[in-house]
Amino acid sequence: MCLDAVRSVLASLEGKRFKRLFLVSCGGSQALMMPGKFFVDKFAKTLFPQHYNSNEFIYLDPDSLDDSSIVILCSQEGKTPETVAAAAFARKKGATVITIAMVDNSPLQDAGGELFVKYGYYETADAIDTSYGVVYLLVSGIIDNQEGTGYFNEMVDSLHKIQPIIAEAKKRYEPKALDFAKRCKDAKVIYSLAAGTDYSQSYVMCNCYLMEMQWINAIPIHAGEFFHGPFEIIEENSPVIILLGSGDCRFLEERALKFCQKYTKELFIIDTSEFCFDGISKNYVGYMSTLILNNICRLYCKKIAVERNHPLDIRRYMHIVEY
Amino acid sequence: MCLDAVRSVLASLEGKRFKRLFLVSCGGSQALMMPGKFFVDKFAKTLFPQHYNSNEFIYLDPDSLDDSSIVILCSQEGKTPETVAAAAFARKKGATVITIAMVDNSPLQDAGGELFVKYGYYETADAIDTSYGVVYLLVSGIIDNQEGTGYFNEMVDSLHKIQPIIAEAKKRYEPKALDFAKRCKDAKVIYSLAAGTDYSQSYVMCNCYLMEMQWINAIPIHAGEFFHGPFEIIEENSPVIILLGSGDCRFLEERALKFCQKYTKELFIIDTSEFCFDGISKNYVGYMSTLILNNICRLYCKKIAVERNHPLDIRRYMHIVEY
Repeated sequence: MCLDAVRSVLASLEGKRFKRLFLVSCGGSQALMMPGKFFVDKFAKTLFPQHYNSNEFIYLDPDSLDDSSIVILCSQEGKTPETVAAAAFARKKGATVITIAMVDNSPLQDAGGELFVKYGYYETADAIDTSYGVVYLLVSGIIDNQEGTGYFNEMVDSLHKIQPIIAEAKKRYEPKALDFAKRCKDAKVIYSLAAGTDYSQSYVMCNCYLMEMQWINAIPIHAGEFFHGPFEIIEENSPVIILLGSGDCRFLEERALKFCQKYTKELFIIDTSEFCFDGISKNYVGYMSTLILNNICRLYCKKIAVERNHPLDIRRYMHIVEY
Repeated sequence: MCLDAVRSVLASLEGKRFKRLFLVSCGGSQALMMPGKFFVDKFAKTLFPQHYNSNEFIYLDPDSLDDSSIVILCSQEGKTPETVAAAAFARKKGATVITIAMVDNSPLQDAGGELFVKYGYYETADAIDTSYGVVYLLVSGIIDNQEGTGYFNEMVDSLHKIQPIIAEAKKRYEPKALDFAKRCKDAKVIYSLAAGTDYSQSYVMCNCYLMEMQWINAIPIHAGEFFHGPFEIIEENSPVIILLGSGDCRFLEERALKFCQKYTKELFIIDTSEFCFDGISKNYVGYMSTLILNNICRLYCKKIAVERNHPLDIRRYMHIVEY
């Protein structure tokens, strides 16, 4: 579904060279851009990525934002006011703007102009048609366009191959998700540790799933930063969700795991090395394993919502009060 | 004290052009580089900054890290193993490496080579001689070197002018720090909100001061992200420390403030607009106001340590157990 739309956007960019890539969004949409930003960080030699909250982007107003910049913005319903404003702001500065949303004809698409990709619903869409998939496709295609590499086709291939593994992972983690839900339903605070692209999932788990949707205090901690302060908080009964991806930064996550195995009994390990990535090119395994973590974290959240009798869509402020 | 050392480092870089600036450290030293990274983000047109935890930098191993890169690394005692390894790694890749530490002849300096700046102790040094000041001086000088701008001299001037304001702020905030300490000494979790360069201080406050040094759960929340999830956690008695800088992103912090004023009674506001920045060039006021926040946050931490009878230097894991 998305592949044609992405190809059409990339075709219209052919021959253009950009110096800077700005990935700009809010909340869960900001987090889903982190793995794409890492991909550019890792592989691009001529394109420098930056990652911003939408309002921060507008108010910082970087001097380098001009017609040599490309900006990608995402909002699920295409209505997030700050992100709509950021799209208009970027166009006014002369940047090339791509918007992505789950719906057509949104304010975001209006503000961003013709370069638009509609993505699928995360619960039902294949990996390649999710927001994560679309960002991966766009950034790999943009690098290809200006550096003559072949990342796009490998990314398409990887996204196709990860789909059955995600489906398997969701099934296999059902009992573990239920165990987490039962043991953590009364937790006062939950920690989530990860590094590299996987940190995006600790961020989503804590900020969106646990704090927003469950009103449980949750602290996302970078696994590499853990030993430089936050680990002092860990006690025997501290609930820690540790994410183990299969990418470059797995070592950092394993180091945090070893510590937690010694010092807390309430450890919840989501380990993507249990799955077989045969056929996926080595450079892409980490980026794909983050998508597994994304799906399993959502499963954990659904289970704890049932266990606590606190539906995922209850809000007390969001879209209810003025802010 | 630091100015001559910084000038000497910058002189040895004259005529060199870098594409990428990597700011690489761990914990508090990572946080102190955030404001410098923002300065480059905001003002540089040819130098693209990136900010990494030391181990993440090594394991990600960006393809663009080469002899067109400059890497700045910091470690207070110059002994942080990951940062020492990152300095050696960057040199091996052909990058230009600058190290900064509070002591001479450390493993970090050995690993980094000749470009070294020793900075002063944060409790007693003037702003220009602290780690924050040195990073500001280095990045503004590096931009000047390659873009022919005049940021360095303005930065020196701003750092001199902020010093008496910091001293005044520390005095003026004594009673507020004591009030915070008394009201929060039994808090189970504390939130800190800020945006832009000030977010570095929410990060330090939560990760280093409260979690590491006081074993109190603390959640740093980006003020722009607050409304896209985390604000749902706020209740009438939620302790929130809100940092109000005087820079580009103050609007984001003020928006979070307005919400918190309505929905929690335990609000602790540190507002730098109470101070007079006359004589400091408009572009620098925000970067300087973050230094005020840094000093006041430390004051809050000292007071709560006394109130809780939990000295700041007690650790149960750091440098005690193996990890």
